[in-house]
Amino acid sequence: MRTADRQALLQQLKLDYSHILINYFTPDAPSPEKIDKFINALFCANIPVPQIIEMHMELIDEFSVQLKLEGLSDDTLLDYRLTLIDILAHLCELYRRSVPK
Amino acid sequence: MRTADRQALLQQLKLDYSHILINYFTPDAPSPEKIDKFINALFCANIPVPQIIEMHMELIDEFSVQLKLEGLSDDTLLDYRLTLIDILAHLCELYRRSVPK
Repeated sequence: MRTADRQALLQQLKLDYSHILINYFTPDAPSPEKIDKFINALFCANIPVPQIIEMHMELIDEFSVQLKLEGLSDDTLLDYRLTLIDILAHLCELYRRSVPK
Repeated sequence: MRTADRQALLQQLKLDYSHILINYFTPDAPSPEKIDKFINALFCANIPVPQIIEMHMELIDEFSVQLKLEGLSDDTLLDYRLTLIDILAHLCELYRRSVPK
């Protein structure tokens, strides 16, 4: 894949992940199918896990800046660690099952 | 592996993980080598990820009971989510690199 295409893919994945994060604890929470689709996209694109962690940290930093601008506490952002655990656990299981015995 | 051997292995892994958790935020924090050794043990034993999550939840529940018996708050146990993220991220990357291209 060309570098520009790879960058565009990463941007799309970051956007998808931001939607999952924002809605994760709301009544409009992403369906298991939507989360699975995102995990499959990470798997198919073979994204290194450190890049996924970086994507998460960047988004949390962006949310934190936004909340502070609005004069709100960013304490609740810690809850999004659960979302990251959810994603990593499912992705890890997907890779585990793909390793030849 | 026989069921009894598998059970013994899981008990050993749970014990190893409890030591990692307990010391994770202390001056006696486990070395990267010790964490790598634990992750390699999970990898070699091909432990399904839901079982790792279950192991984590059981330990957190046990710590919570202990803290409450001592009249202490269990709020700090939420921080151990970072330990789980650390383990899952490294294990996931290990499996990712083991999938044939």
